[in-house]
Amino acid sequence: MVRRTFILGGYQTDFARNWTKEGKGIMAMIREVLDGGFSKTGIDPGDIDSVHVGNFAGELYAMQAHLGAFVCNYHPALRGLPTSRHEAACASSSIAALMARTEIEAGTYDLSLVMGVELMKSVDSKTGGSYLGTAAWYEKECAGVEFPFPKLFDRLYDVYDKKYGVNYEHLARISAVNYDNAKRNPNAQTRGWYMNLQHACSSGSYNRVIGKRLRASDCSQVTDGAVAIFLASEEYTRGYAKRTGKKLEDIPYIQGWGHRTAPILFDEKEKEAIANEYPLPHTRGAVTDAYRRAGITGAGELSCIETHDCFSITEYAAIEHFGLADPGEAYRRIDDGTIEIGGSCPVNPSGGLIGCGHPVGATGARQLLDAYLQVSGNAGAYQVEGAKRAAVLNIGGSATTNVVHIIGRGE
Amino acid sequence: MVRRTFILGGYQTDFARNWTKEGKGIMAMIREVLDGGFSKTGIDPGDIDSVHVGNFAGELYAMQAHLGAFVCNYHPALRGLPTSRHEAACASSSIAALMARTEIEAGTYDLSLVMGVELMKSVDSKTGGSYLGTAAWYEKECAGVEFPFPKLFDRLYDVYDKKYGVNYEHLARISAVNYDNAKRNPNAQTRGWYMNLQHACSSGSYNRVIGKRLRASDCSQVTDGAVAIFLASEEYTRGYAKRTGKKLEDIPYIQGWGHRTAPILFDEKEKEAIANEYPLPHTRGAVTDAYRRAGITGAGELSCIETHDCFSITEYAAIEHFGLADPGEAYRRIDDGTIEIGGSCPVNPSGGLIGCGHPVGATGARQLLDAYLQVSGNAGAYQVEGAKRAAVLNIGGSATTNVVHIIGRGE
Repeated sequence: MVRRTFILGGYQTDFARNWTKEGKGIMAMIREVLDGGFSKTGIDPGDIDSVHVGNFAGELYAMQAHLGAFVCNYHPALRGLPTSRHEAACASSSIAALMARTEIEAGTYDLSLVMGVELMKSVDSKTGGSYLGTAAWYEKECAGVEFPFPKLFDRLYDVYDKKYGVNYEHLARISAVNYDNAKRNPNAQTRGWYMNLQHACSSGSYNRVIGKRLRASDCSQVTDGAVAIFLASEEYTRGYAKRTGKKLEDIPYIQGWGHRTAPILFDEKEKEAIANEYPLPHTRGAVTDAYRRAGITGAGELSCIETHDCFSITEYAAIEHFGLADPGEAYRRIDDGTIEIGGSCPVNPSGGLIGCGHPVGATGARQLLDAYLQVSGNAGAYQVEGAKRAAVLNIGGSATTNVVHIIGRGE
Repeated sequence: MVRRTFILGGYQTDFARNWTKEGKGIMAMIREVLDGGFSKTGIDPGDIDSVHVGNFAGELYAMQAHLGAFVCNYHPALRGLPTSRHEAACASSSIAALMARTEIEAGTYDLSLVMGVELMKSVDSKTGGSYLGTAAWYEKECAGVEFPFPKLFDRLYDVYDKKYGVNYEHLARISAVNYDNAKRNPNAQTRGWYMNLQHACSSGSYNRVIGKRLRASDCSQVTDGAVAIFLASEEYTRGYAKRTGKKLEDIPYIQGWGHRTAPILFDEKEKEAIANEYPLPHTRGAVTDAYRRAGITGAGELSCIETHDCFSITEYAAIEHFGLADPGEAYRRIDDGTIEIGGSCPVNPSGGLIGCGHPVGATGARQLLDAYLQVSGNAGAYQVEGAKRAAVLNIGGSATTNVVHIIGRGE
């Protein structure tokens, strides 16, 4: 019997902020997200047993490595704790969460602080685009390429289009839904932006083509952001529930997870995509691993999904890889409104990476926090009514690292 | 009862190599160390369940993040595996090993590939010195400082000197022993270098003062290197032992471990050093945690130690923090020959970071591999006769992250 790992909540910084303009650095982000996390959950810093930080490229954006250790700086009670930083590109803080959960399952620790953080607006967009290239095979795929990632995901669009056909309007609708949802999310980067379906369908000076076909509206944002969540053993959670007047069965826990890595080169992924029914077989594998561990049969048992949508085409693929539609038929779930808030399985009620923002190393933790908020009924204006089980897909690189979590309650 | 984690061996690249001069990059290092690891141990790539890579700053030295994923590239059987990269400055691959062991203790996986890798000679020494500064609080402690790390450890020297008195000749003897031992190690970076006690005691154009008092001979090396080790559950190890004609009780396993983080700023460490009998209380805490978990009383039960000696003063401190001498009395164990090969508890028979080399993110894995080699009787010319139990101390930053492992056999 695997020990259960609960999520006790956490905190997200306002993703619309530009910390460089505020004259603040990555340390200020860490301080503020911990302030928020401890005060929001009422957890005593002295209870923390271990610290796991997800960060993609602090060495480049902030000239700072060793970020795990910085958490000890926050409070005297955190001094001496075991800390570490984990990285798998855009899936970095999902790795941090996997490690924290494993420690709890092993019985090593009872309460872990998982933090994701990324400062990105410290550099201009071309430099930032080049830094993001280190998430792929930089030398082979990105050196000398301007904005390499939209170009890599353009290739996924091509693969999909050749294999199953993709109507661009369906991608535009994914973007429009994400932007719409983000308007309900008080921490979403784009909550005040102008964007709708008509705009997403346009192309030109107001909606620039970034790759070959993908447009600005199809892209996730460059975001400064930090997220803290708290993972706990059942024993700690029982005490926490008692103290806070909650019932154990109302506190979300990790029901299942999957973690698989695809070949790093997109050339290899392209071959796999052509050869397989599911164009991203390792993404599909991570999903089915998570379903199996959660003891569920498929997407029919999910209340909602927070998925990686670094580009609209990534969410298009995710809809199928989660099994909401058969391969090649994501458009059906876009057409019938399934993925919208109010639909039978909303995707990215938070606004996702396109609407809420994408501080690379913090995104996985942000998704897990949003899954927690949904399942515990605390998502406010973007709450999916009666949500009992949420799935999260976080992807690093060009669909290279795939991490899926299933968060549920009530058993 | 905690599940035991065994070490099945591994491989170290020749630390004297300069991969940039060979026209090779970090991918070639990964490929060659995996070639060596699989062929040396006879492990089938298809048996691997998970991959943990330790790397400090591939983003800076090699313009490459997401290094966990690159391992999948090595062999078709590794495709799809869960991979990740872990970082805690110079303790990065010890974090990778901690994570792999935790997975095995949790029963998640049976066989994990732990790799450490760092390409460092891709940049000139001043640039490299600045990159190393990201292991401390760069903005506060390193920005604009040439070679910040020797200066930080000069301060540890000062603290020690004020508190207990340190005769420089004892530091020189630590360096000389490390260089001497390295001459026996076929993979040591300095094995062909000229260095002896007289030279280490000299100061001037042949042995430049780098910080305020520490000299070139007191410093660890700038090194390109990669190390792979294999951690396994008891179940897998039983099968492996049978297949390779070994007895389970002859295969080293992790008997104990400790992991503690000190405040990042050296100013804070200095205050702790003045206030505590052990100048590095979190280092001491990691040691005593490891002893407790291993069920041993102290250094008297160790056959040898592989310790972090980023500078000679670090090893001086380690001798005391391991309990080989009382605080302030490391010099006694230097004077009486305890730390030399042939002494009662040799320290760094491999040559350590000073003699063997210090590829930052690979050092922890290299130390664990050397502990394995000693305890399994495979250390060749630097074998500590009859070694049954070895301790490892790996430190990240200015004594910030402290990881200790105890590797033993025969129970």
